[in-house]
Amino acid sequence: MPKEDKNEQKALTKRSDDFSQWYQDVIVASDLAENAPVRGCMIIKPYGYALWENIQKEIDAILKDMGIENAYFPLLIPESYFKREADHVKGFSPELAVVTHGGGKKLEEPLVIRPTSETIIYDAFSRWIHSYRDLPFVVNQWANVVRWEMRPRLFLRTTEFLWQEGHTAHATAQDAKEYALMILDKVYKKFAQEYLAIPVFTGQKSESEKFAGALSTYCIEALMQDGKSLQMGTSHDLSDHFAKSFHVQYLDDSGERKFVHQTSWGVSTRLIGGIIMAHGDDKGLIFPPKIAPIKFVIIPICKNADEPAMSAAKEIFAIVSKIGKGKLDERLNLRAGEKFYEWEKKGVPVRIEIGPKDLEKKSCVIVRRDTGEKESCPIDAIVARIQEILDDIQKNLYARALEKRDASIKIADDWIGFTAGIEKGGYVFAYWCEEAKCEEEIKEKTKATSRCLPFDGKEEKGEHVCVHCKKPVANKKRWVFAKAY
Amino acid sequence: MPKEDKNEQKALTKRSDDFSQWYQDVIVASDLAENAPVRGCMIIKPYGYALWENIQKEIDAILKDMGIENAYFPLLIPESYFKREADHVKGFSPELAVVTHGGGKKLEEPLVIRPTSETIIYDAFSRWIHSYRDLPFVVNQWANVVRWEMRPRLFLRTTEFLWQEGHTAHATAQDAKEYALMILDKVYKKFAQEYLAIPVFTGQKSESEKFAGALSTYCIEALMQDGKSLQMGTSHDLSDHFAKSFHVQYLDDSGERKFVHQTSWGVSTRLIGGIIMAHGDDKGLIFPPKIAPIKFVIIPICKNADEPAMSAAKEIFAIVSKIGKGKLDERLNLRAGEKFYEWEKKGVPVRIEIGPKDLEKKSCVIVRRDTGEKESCPIDAIVARIQEILDDIQKNLYARALEKRDASIKIADDWIGFTAGIEKGGYVFAYWCEEAKCEEEIKEKTKATSRCLPFDGKEEKGEHVCVHCKKPVANKKRWVFAKAY
Repeated sequence: MPKEDKNEQKALTKRSDDFSQWYQDVIVASDLAENAPVRGCMIIKPYGYALWENIQKEIDAILKDMGIENAYFPLLIPESYFKREADHVKGFSPELAVVTHGGGKKLEEPLVIRPTSETIIYDAFSRWIHSYRDLPFVVNQWANVVRWEMRPRLFLRTTEFLWQEGHTAHATAQDAKEYALMILDKVYKKFAQEYLAIPVFTGQKSESEKFAGALSTYCIEALMQDGKSLQMGTSHDLSDHFAKSFHVQYLDDSGERKFVHQTSWGVSTRLIGGIIMAHGDDKGLIFPPKIAPIKFVIIPICKNADEPAMSAAKEIFAIVSKIGKGKLDERLNLRAGEKFYEWEKKGVPVRIEIGPKDLEKKSCVIVRRDTGEKESCPIDAIVARIQEILDDIQKNLYARALEKRDASIKIADDWIGFTAGIEKGGYVFAYWCEEAKCEEEIKEKTKATSRCLPFDGKEEKGEHVCVHCKKPVANKKRWVFAKAY
Repeated sequence: MPKEDKNEQKALTKRSDDFSQWYQDVIVASDLAENAPVRGCMIIKPYGYALWENIQKEIDAILKDMGIENAYFPLLIPESYFKREADHVKGFSPELAVVTHGGGKKLEEPLVIRPTSETIIYDAFSRWIHSYRDLPFVVNQWANVVRWEMRPRLFLRTTEFLWQEGHTAHATAQDAKEYALMILDKVYKKFAQEYLAIPVFTGQKSESEKFAGALSTYCIEALMQDGKSLQMGTSHDLSDHFAKSFHVQYLDDSGERKFVHQTSWGVSTRLIGGIIMAHGDDKGLIFPPKIAPIKFVIIPICKNADEPAMSAAKEIFAIVSKIGKGKLDERLNLRAGEKFYEWEKKGVPVRIEIGPKDLEKKSCVIVRRDTGEKESCPIDAIVARIQEILDDIQKNLYARALEKRDASIKIADDWIGFTAGIEKGGYVFAYWCEEAKCEEEIKEKTKATSRCLPFDGKEEKGEHVCVHCKKPVANKKRWVFAKAY
């Protein structure tokens, strides 16, 4: 007997009823991924993986245009390497998966499955970097990493996930900081906004939210439709912390031996969770055309394969395929309505319908996934029109997400305003003392945390006090707070 | 103090002096990869990874053209899953890496790092496949796998390696067998011969050399320059062995529940070892143009950046880059000869030199890596000529490898001929009883093993006896034997 499919399809929950259940439902219904037998791990199904391939392709192209090359470092890291940077091991120890046996024997030294690769990569840097001429030294890798996850959620928090991690070494502290910020702006913000159609805040993380081992962590943060914020990517200024632990040094042009300053930065399959929650609706996924695995679907309205609508659909499919990957839904065992429903769930940006009545007029019907708008289009104008609509959907998704994001912003000057603002969902801008204890208390009371000190925040004159503890703050800019994933 | 680099550059050993040392040297000298701190693991450096990216891109395109989609299955497999197929667990147990601790706790059930993914994927198939309409079911993944390796060699045998593994389910035994053979022929043989310029034998493995859990294993085998054979890829007919262990069943069109028949097939970073050993010479690597990370290098013969040769080199670089990725070597701190030497080591197929004398004649010098031939070429004809030469190098590498391979073939009808043939290196074709004990004895005496029963072997009339044990054999075709990696 085949086993019962625990991931079996159900009707979609409405976002307003239970956003978290909607998220789970839409992933199953659209066939993106499912839970694996090992708790916290996932199987990325072909449709989900095609999305990841598109994400990878575009980010990789951006990185290669910057001259950044890929390499591959080992999955297994000696436990002793991992312990060399004190903050790093402290932060990651609770999340490690440890290999104790290999080849049928107990290992002399346990091996850690990489949760991130600073330690193994900087050990290599210590052999590869000799002089200032080798700097900046930049390398990227696409890899799987494992972090033991107690509260797993598909794509958002999984024990194993896929990502890219970039690692660099620079001559000066200033070079490293600038590089970390450049990656945040020119790669992550650009990719999120221009490809994923998701507006992001860029800013600096608080001490308690930064990467274990970093001097500073910079991030992109985006609003999800339930009013929570998602950290979609981070870029770390590692200063010389790892350089000192791994002896990564160079000779400067006067022959003096110095420690390098480093950065590391990554985005992961978590981006897919962001796409789902930023754009999806009660009918299912909505994919931005630039990264959609299927950009358009053509559905002939006919009952038999030999009807004119089918051959017309095939001709249209051939010409529209110039634009990008599409799908011709030739199945005859499903009604047209069932097909519409299925491709809507899967977030395909544009649907083309062609039936006998359309054929008479030498036209077809185009339906946009984002607005549901229908229009009739002459067949001989179809390629240009589909391209126009895809471009417009890309812009519209961004505009609509930006509108939601901006509408969610509240300015709070006192605790009542702050708690009311957090209660409503979205972002609250407030002055904050930046103390860990105060942040912890804010979190206990409201479930919100500092997301970042945004780079484009405005300086406000006058004396300011912490929105929670009321201590005077030196900062002239507000932090942004929200509940977060 | 920066640590001493154990992978530091040395003069290349000659192939004829010590092939194995030459192999090691050329990998280090060309900057493809190095040993990682964990024994048996490797770091694939940017130049080596760029080669893997090209291999991946081409194979992925071939698979996608066949409509095969990628997915991603988890790294970690419950130990109990692994034990379900008796032959499979017996074959792989000695090679497993086992995770016993996660998130700071001892796990209730140990997890195995995938050495191959049949078990975890077919568990998913048991949930995904319901009816004959779902068949054939085909999926591929690009992933890292871990097999504990006692005698590691960079690329050829590493504890962690990168590969693709395809997995399928079919309605009948015949469908599965045909699919396994189709992949071997249309993907692996095609890729090896047309892209890597390496001629291969295709054939069936003996019982002792087949995949643990398979009914039959088909392979591609190629000659390396030291006279040994390299298994470069395998495609397995798994019959219903795994289907029975993992309950992968379907309803046929009469409503009867049946087990599927399956295949799995893979090629790995081992292919890179094959490229090195099939084509390299005493100067270093020679890459087939179709997969070379850098197809051409342009070297201006000048001492200063403001000389006409430099600006001409830049112009030529811009136009020749239409053909594919190239490199303009603008470095002024190295002499031209040093640059030639470096790019030869790195196996770049074509070198373009341009100096003041060439410029006077409005020409440049082209040097082929495979033959070392030099020619002068008018600058305005350069793109077409470089393309021609690249095509010719691709063909020449194949022709030269085929010549070596065919010249290495010996037909043996008795044990003296067999041992003499093996001693000389290359392939020996002989009748064999197909018994494991006999193969073991042949291996002990000669270090050679059966590589495959080649598909294109000719049937020879008459009675034949095993070349070793002299028992009569039913087979009308000869097996191919060789020492192997």
